[in-house]
Amino acid sequence: MEIAVQTANPYTVYVERGAAKRLDELCLGYHKVCLVVDQNVYDLYSEELPSLTSETYTFVLPSGESNKNLTQYARLLSYLAANRFDRKDALVALGGGVTGDLTGFAAATYMRGIDWIGVPTTLLSMVDSSVGGKTAVDLAEGKNLVGAFWQPKAVLIDPDYLVSLPEAERKNGMGEVIKYACLMGGDAGKAILAGELPTDRLIAACVQYKADVVKQDELDKGVRATLNLGHTLGHAIEQLSAYSVPHGTAVAMGLGIVARSAYDKGRLNKRDFEAIEIALEELCVPQVPYTIPQLCRQALHDKKVEGSTLHLIDIFGLGDCRIVDIPADRLEDYLC
Amino acid sequence: MEIAVQTANPYTVYVERGAAKRLDELCLGYHKVCLVVDQNVYDLYSEELPSLTSETYTFVLPSGESNKNLTQYARLLSYLAANRFDRKDALVALGGGVTGDLTGFAAATYMRGIDWIGVPTTLLSMVDSSVGGKTAVDLAEGKNLVGAFWQPKAVLIDPDYLVSLPEAERKNGMGEVIKYACLMGGDAGKAILAGELPTDRLIAACVQYKADVVKQDELDKGVRATLNLGHTLGHAIEQLSAYSVPHGTAVAMGLGIVARSAYDKGRLNKRDFEAIEIALEELCVPQVPYTIPQLCRQALHDKKVEGSTLHLIDIFGLGDCRIVDIPADRLEDYLC
Repeated sequence: MEIAVQTANPYTVYVERGAAKRLDELCLGYHKVCLVVDQNVYDLYSEELPSLTSETYTFVLPSGESNKNLTQYARLLSYLAANRFDRKDALVALGGGVTGDLTGFAAATYMRGIDWIGVPTTLLSMVDSSVGGKTAVDLAEGKNLVGAFWQPKAVLIDPDYLVSLPEAERKNGMGEVIKYACLMGGDAGKAILAGELPTDRLIAACVQYKADVVKQDELDKGVRATLNLGHTLGHAIEQLSAYSVPHGTAVAMGLGIVARSAYDKGRLNKRDFEAIEIALEELCVPQVPYTIPQLCRQALHDKKVEGSTLHLIDIFGLGDCRIVDIPADRLEDYLC
Repeated sequence: MEIAVQTANPYTVYVERGAAKRLDELCLGYHKVCLVVDQNVYDLYSEELPSLTSETYTFVLPSGESNKNLTQYARLLSYLAANRFDRKDALVALGGGVTGDLTGFAAATYMRGIDWIGVPTTLLSMVDSSVGGKTAVDLAEGKNLVGAFWQPKAVLIDPDYLVSLPEAERKNGMGEVIKYACLMGGDAGKAILAGELPTDRLIAACVQYKADVVKQDELDKGVRATLNLGHTLGHAIEQLSAYSVPHGTAVAMGLGIVARSAYDKGRLNKRDFEAIEIALEELCVPQVPYTIPQLCRQALHDKKVEGSTLHLIDIFGLGDCRIVDIPADRLEDYLC
């Protein structure tokens, strides 16, 4: 299946078994290609890395969020420079969100911008981070604080990679999938929440939804914020746990709290609430180990300005999620 | 004088004595502002740094091209994060090209892009690097290898800063000024070469010329390359001297060689050639310490691909500089 992402520089996301085999053809126009490969992926697939006609270089990135930093970014840039990459060459990100975010940022800034192609290998990166052009690395002070908007030239989503994905990673990805199901609503959203869609169609539905939102708001100045459903509290959970709760799981937890609050306060009907609850139960999302006041304090930690407002994404029904502006000192009341 | 730069996000360059006093008004919309100040400038002006109504932070950048690197870039980003800068805050670059390039790149990438304002303090940065949105840092492997196109919100060119500029730095800037005079031609170009324009008008003429070119080709895919007149051999001189020859001086040397070649081979008439020669003599540009074969070898160092071509900016007359495609193995013949 081919999904068009109509950004200023449009591109295609291919979602299909064997999609990774398209890589060689897509790279024919480049003289040199650097495959940036996550260490875990390299260990699993070193014998069957994509074989390219173009002159190919392989750069192995240590696994894990802690390596999505300026040190690894600098290492990659120096590797490209030492191998005399120029504006007509390209990068390929083969791995999960860390690999995609860092490779995309290197592509955005090497010689002020070269092409890159994403080949996500985790469910989380297939349904979310590989599409939309948000590239970044972390600072010690916080996640994704440095980056650029830089769309890939193509994204190849090959569900065959999921065969080697640990179950915990699949569940992590499902946190974002449930978020997309709530955002899209309709038959597809309900089918996802009920666990009725096969993986490839589920991925395609999420990507199609994201592509539609990104088309309307590529630079994240408006409606794209709705994709942060579950993220305000999810980020607080990640931070309070010192990132021991993975991103997708934290988003599922945050979404659960927002949905429960919306139901308790009469903003969300029982049928939709129960559909979300069932999906989260299926995931066995652990109990949130923090109270709502703790989460609110953490979420507001950066909002010291008096009178500031917080933009919460609230759920009024499947397919009806909206940005709600809440005065910072009213967040706890709003949720409890 | 106000010069409009009509890029995708347009802005104004103010060229006038006291222009720096406009900074406070331009910053009123930002909650926090970080003044990134070159150490030399800080030492000279610490008592009279711009005083702003906005909450102001000062980050001192060590002087010199060797500090235009990813280490200082990371230091600045962490400083911003530690002080909780967000998308609604801004940076101000107060210094020469190093400060402007690095600050602009930090602005381009902090939280995927925040605003910045340039206040260049050297002749070189006033006439050239502060305008046009090319931001960058260096790698050990080469200059400006990492960066982004990110236009400032405004540029304040205050010639009063030149009072404290060392003579060697003024001469360095004049190398780029002579380049602009050759590109623009006409009465203004001739007046600049003859040393007849006062400094403020000379700066305004260069900025106006650059603004017109950048408007046509913001992302440097075509005509903007003509601004590299003198740079192909200039870069070779910088590299061979391990950067002991400063950029503007190297450009003047490179321009001198290209002009001499164009005259010797009958592409450039005697009157225009002599006008350039006189301007370069006035500058006392030192003898180029390398032979043309040495320079050609260095310039072609990165062009290992068989059959590749080099894009040289050649001068056919004042106001008539063109991109000439020369097969890599014919460069020496073309120049000698």
